[in-house]
Amino acid sequence: MLSLPKEVTIIEVGPRDGLQNEKNFVPTETKLMFINKLAGAGIKEMELTSFVSPKWVPQMQDASEIVASPPDIPTNIVLAPNRKGIDRALELGCRSVAVFVGVSNSFNKKNINKSTKESLEELKPIITELKKKDIFVRACISTAFYCPFEGKVAESDTLRLCEEFVAAGVDELSVADTIGMAAPSESFSLFSSLKERLPNVLLTAHFHDTRKMALANIFAALQAGIDRFDTSAGGLGGCPFAPGATGNVATEDVVYMLERMGISTGIDLTKLVEAIDTVSPALSRKIESGYYQLSKK
Amino acid sequence: MLSLPKEVTIIEVGPRDGLQNEKNFVPTETKLMFINKLAGAGIKEMELTSFVSPKWVPQMQDASEIVASPPDIPTNIVLAPNRKGIDRALELGCRSVAVFVGVSNSFNKKNINKSTKESLEELKPIITELKKKDIFVRACISTAFYCPFEGKVAESDTLRLCEEFVAAGVDELSVADTIGMAAPSESFSLFSSLKERLPNVLLTAHFHDTRKMALANIFAALQAGIDRFDTSAGGLGGCPFAPGATGNVATEDVVYMLERMGISTGIDLTKLVEAIDTVSPALSRKIESGYYQLSKK
Repeated sequence: MLSLPKEVTIIEVGPRDGLQNEKNFVPTETKLMFINKLAGAGIKEMELTSFVSPKWVPQMQDASEIVASPPDIPTNIVLAPNRKGIDRALELGCRSVAVFVGVSNSFNKKNINKSTKESLEELKPIITELKKKDIFVRACISTAFYCPFEGKVAESDTLRLCEEFVAAGVDELSVADTIGMAAPSESFSLFSSLKERLPNVLLTAHFHDTRKMALANIFAALQAGIDRFDTSAGGLGGCPFAPGATGNVATEDVVYMLERMGISTGIDLTKLVEAIDTVSPALSRKIESGYYQLSKK
Repeated sequence: MLSLPKEVTIIEVGPRDGLQNEKNFVPTETKLMFINKLAGAGIKEMELTSFVSPKWVPQMQDASEIVASPPDIPTNIVLAPNRKGIDRALELGCRSVAVFVGVSNSFNKKNINKSTKESLEELKPIITELKKKDIFVRACISTAFYCPFEGKVAESDTLRLCEEFVAAGVDELSVADTIGMAAPSESFSLFSSLKERLPNVLLTAHFHDTRKMALANIFAALQAGIDRFDTSAGGLGGCPFAPGATGNVATEDVVYMLERMGISTGIDLTKLVEAIDTVSPALSRKIESGYYQLSKK
């Protein structure tokens, strides 16, 4: 018999992880409408924006304006790669911060010009400070399965890094198959190990649909006991520093599959499509998710 | 722990189920090249063509020429909807015949203008005759989960029909999620029941990727003990009589996922892409499978 959770929490990453890969600047007003409609569709946790250098990611240059009008949901997350970004986020009143690090050294270096170990050592005291201020800390663990430069990442390396972040005090681990290469058996294996070893942290799985395996990986992770998934409305996103990493798994396809299995998400698919329609005219790409396309036929 | 088979048989349906939905007539020579290259890539069982009325499916008007030059593989299957088609196939020396029927009455009527029961009763004596001639008989059971006209199909209805076909003497059941609506939990449930009730027939699962759930459904079916899958090179196909049924699951995406889980298929992905390249210039559509697209980057 299959063992599946009854409820799943969707962490919507479209406004941040999705939009950061858009070449055309999406007007701040459009972003805010998108965010609010996502909240209206039932999203309870969302990555709103990122406090990164506008030189590196010009799309995120309006981070201050975005966090000035947050939606009325329990968890509004901002990503910040370093102390400077975190300080800005805190000054602006943010209460949930995401930091990130790649398990693979090569990826981490391309991404933030530091080794994985350097990133970890830099983040440890920052996490301690954040927890003293009662800030929710989410650690985004990228290249948890495969690295675009190094290939297969050892499960033991990913487990070790996750354990170090939990020891450092993070509240949540978002463990990502950054380039969409994980097979469902690998998803099941890693998430089973994480679930067993780290029972006291929120464990979130983050999949990309590059090779069409995202829903299969989610189905595998559900069987490993995972009940939190990062998804991106419209399947927006990818990773600017990971060649071939197009396509976050689409929120609507995930919600559709989960609800069809009787797993409650609290998300209204019709309203979710309306949210995507708010932002899609401003994008340089077509929305290719199964649910969205069928909804337009 | 996951229980997965060590080997899987891929039944390639692109030349028949895939091409029958192509508006533009694909030249016979191109079809034969496609078929031969698929065999060269390691395909061992293939639906080559269909003996249907050229009035209904003009793409299949060259069925006789196709079966005159079959590839050198163990199982070359031809589809035939009725006695007339079957007689033609046998006259031309075909040794493996596929018949089809929909679990849903409405679908079966739209498809072949008969109720499911009428189809079954007509096919029973034909199957007996075919088995006397030692012909391999495959029964394609469509709308096994959902019907585009009636919605949810009861698992018990699908099971009953499958049992009747096995009682009639078929060698293989190809059980299809014709409109790509099955959730992985439904795939697991139906295929577990089939596996338990019908241990002495070849059980094949046939999924469409309409809602991006095909690989998840395959992963679920593997866990139910299924080790045979219909797939279509390039993801060609759909169903002309089922609205919204675009997209057979792509052979290359299935093979990639299976091989990545250590499940052997005997198929060479590079050669498979070359096979798709033979036919794709003749098609009115783009190849959208994950593996194919990445192979061109």
